[in-house]
Amino acid sequence: MTRQKTRFQLPENEIPTYWYNVLSDLPFSIPLAVQPKKVKETLSERNYKGSPQLPLSLFRQNVSKERYIEIPQEVRSLYALWRPTPLYRAHRLERHLETPAKIYYKYEGTSPTGSHKLNTAIAQAYYYKKAGVKHLTTGTSAAQWGSALALACNFFELVCTIYMTNVSYEQKLDRAKLMETLGAKVFSSPSRETEVGRKLVEGDPNVIGNLAISNAEALEHARNSDKCKFSVGSGQNHVLLHQTVIGQETIKQLKMAGDYPDIIIACVGGGSNFAGLCFPFISSKLNHSDSIRLIAVESAACPKLTRGRYTWDHTDLSGISPIVKSYTLGHNFVTPGIYAAGLRYHATSPIISKLYHEKLIEATAYSQRAVFEAGLLFSHTEGILPAPESAHAIRAAIDEAVKARERGDESVILFNLSGHGYFDLGGYECYLKTEMDDCIVTDKQIEESLSNLPEVELRGG
Amino acid sequence: MTRQKTRFQLPENEIPTYWYNVLSDLPFSIPLAVQPKKVKETLSERNYKGSPQLPLSLFRQNVSKERYIEIPQEVRSLYALWRPTPLYRAHRLERHLETPAKIYYKYEGTSPTGSHKLNTAIAQAYYYKKAGVKHLTTGTSAAQWGSALALACNFFELVCTIYMTNVSYEQKLDRAKLMETLGAKVFSSPSRETEVGRKLVEGDPNVIGNLAISNAEALEHARNSDKCKFSVGSGQNHVLLHQTVIGQETIKQLKMAGDYPDIIIACVGGGSNFAGLCFPFISSKLNHSDSIRLIAVESAACPKLTRGRYTWDHTDLSGISPIVKSYTLGHNFVTPGIYAAGLRYHATSPIISKLYHEKLIEATAYSQRAVFEAGLLFSHTEGILPAPESAHAIRAAIDEAVKARERGDESVILFNLSGHGYFDLGGYECYLKTEMDDCIVTDKQIEESLSNLPEVELRGG
Repeated sequence: MTRQKTRFQLPENEIPTYWYNVLSDLPFSIPLAVQPKKVKETLSERNYKGSPQLPLSLFRQNVSKERYIEIPQEVRSLYALWRPTPLYRAHRLERHLETPAKIYYKYEGTSPTGSHKLNTAIAQAYYYKKAGVKHLTTGTSAAQWGSALALACNFFELVCTIYMTNVSYEQKLDRAKLMETLGAKVFSSPSRETEVGRKLVEGDPNVIGNLAISNAEALEHARNSDKCKFSVGSGQNHVLLHQTVIGQETIKQLKMAGDYPDIIIACVGGGSNFAGLCFPFISSKLNHSDSIRLIAVESAACPKLTRGRYTWDHTDLSGISPIVKSYTLGHNFVTPGIYAAGLRYHATSPIISKLYHEKLIEATAYSQRAVFEAGLLFSHTEGILPAPESAHAIRAAIDEAVKARERGDESVILFNLSGHGYFDLGGYECYLKTEMDDCIVTDKQIEESLSNLPEVELRGG
Repeated sequence: MTRQKTRFQLPENEIPTYWYNVLSDLPFSIPLAVQPKKVKETLSERNYKGSPQLPLSLFRQNVSKERYIEIPQEVRSLYALWRPTPLYRAHRLERHLETPAKIYYKYEGTSPTGSHKLNTAIAQAYYYKKAGVKHLTTGTSAAQWGSALALACNFFELVCTIYMTNVSYEQKLDRAKLMETLGAKVFSSPSRETEVGRKLVEGDPNVIGNLAISNAEALEHARNSDKCKFSVGSGQNHVLLHQTVIGQETIKQLKMAGDYPDIIIACVGGGSNFAGLCFPFISSKLNHSDSIRLIAVESAACPKLTRGRYTWDHTDLSGISPIVKSYTLGHNFVTPGIYAAGLRYHATSPIISKLYHEKLIEATAYSQRAVFEAGLLFSHTEGILPAPESAHAIRAAIDEAVKARERGDESVILFNLSGHGYFDLGGYECYLKTEMDDCIVTDKQIEESLSNLPEVELRGG
């Protein structure tokens, strides 16, 4: 047997020097965030008050049409702590599946906090620090984002306050402890620290938290604290932008491997790891009309793309935050407490929503037992225990590889292994004990939640 | 500021093709394991029954005088899942310490089970499989070793049974769960599964386990099970041999960096991560008499090198296992339940013991509060949360860097970051709550334990 390469590793000087801005290549515009009851299709810099939590630097990244946005040297120096991340060829998984398909995965779990989230956390902390901010606060579910922001705040000497969704706080207590070792203050959300939290807890002490609630608490915290701003881990354009280092590296690594993908797969919560891997490939899809398929994988317990509506909705539960146009299940949607907490957010990013609406990307949904089964198979063949979120992408990649076997073709399948699952052993234990619920969502639940969308005034578009 | 490199990454084809056998370069022989009451200074292949748990392939590695032992292709293919591991320059830690010293660390935590242990687990599983073994069993403390063996057994389709020290089982429950996701059967030790375990539990239901007990249970399990052998995670020559991929890679990576170490530091439990990093440098120390200092760092709660005795002792609590000559606190020594469970073993490897006895290496000991303080500082500056074991090496590296600052010299300090601490958040939480005990060991405890050494018949030496 000729020895085939397993891991494609770029040297440190190949860390990308810019982020790739997909907005520059899209043949349509993305409806931007607006204040409640005031919807416009475009937003200029004068409307900066519309995003009061963002420093001008990040606001400009949100609306930029520049193709390339330079990565500051200080950010690249910190990226060097773990980037470039490895691209793997999944030889052992392929052999197990007896598929002629070639399976590649980009592994973001080598970051110090175990996921891709640190790519944007470091960038955001850098820009907030430059803008004179002293304290960042955020909402988090699985706390891949919360841990990343806690570490980034540490690097830039910023105070950090995290509202972590209660159901995840209980499932992943070590994630909370990790944030605390990094100096962050962590609250299980909804908490009694904020008005929005108190109202919920007093209404129902057993209320199940979600990211819309955690973010609403963090926003309230930011408004009431000195030099404190709300930082967000997914969804917004600048966050997706920062993740494009993933796909840029992957393009180079696939060249080393002598391959180009037919299918690219990533899980979708807010959309940042999907964007990070896929956006740098979209330019080629648009400009060269290649037949590459991009598949967004969501949880069947939170099926915004496959069963939600493309419409205007709040990004959190405060009712006063900007409204965005996206695929949503309604900001009041109560997502079941699945272990893949990073996929529990009621909506997805405006850019990904528009790409899906324009049929440039596909979407599929899996319920959690099928996902954990795939995660375990991956760990047994490739060694790495995947985060439950990333295991959604693995599930889809396995299914595509099996289809390729049935067709007898050598498709090249690429997916984003966005994080490791070493904080998710509770979920795997639950699966192994066959105690795991598939958390099926009824049409009625979705309809009810969607009947409660905010009123909007449309102007222009 | 000129941009200096942070991470030195070798390509996959630079995975070492051989293990380096330090025995070939040592100017003295190492007393080998003997059966109780029958001690000889040399051991030939005819005495193979003296190590009945080892297949001939591994026994030969134990006594080989060959300088280089080829790594089988199948083992190298599996190493490619994470090797070569990165070497880092700790720029941020250096700046924090305001030291002119250059600090490098080799990071073994990128392995799928988070530590260096997989280097030998894969090699051992390979050789046992080839020898027709169907089932491996072992004792483990922190379960860096147990997790590694569980994954390796998975790769080679071997049944795996683990006896995990009870105090660590409670501290690191997720480690047990991880082994279970990999298909291993895990018992908290001492257990009621074995005679040696039952005797201890019935004598004192609150007995604190240790590796001597866990190994005794695993040995009993192996003797009573079909095609089942006992595999060991540290101490023995072949285990140390397999770890030498660490130092071999480091030598190449330091060349990329244009540096050579003045001081090399690693923590010492059984000795395998110390050996892995240091042995490949010893040849140059012996052959070129360079002034490189090698520092073994142990826990002050288990100070075998700094306060133990160089003598013959059992490697476990069964009383029938081979006896080795090493620095020991006595096989009945009750090590306090420190979080760095990998350093709780009562003795260290025969080779490292002899090197220390011959003053080729130094030793130092730290108690756990100082170690966790260093671990947190490292995580805040370099991003990676270290395993408590590895944090011992960090503590020593920091202290050497501070001494270098006081002397005003640019010493090059290298240490082994043998694993990450993402399964050790309980320990960090305990430290942050200032509830951590330093677990001071009295001279009387050590004397008492050393009064209970086995009888040996010396012949020849």
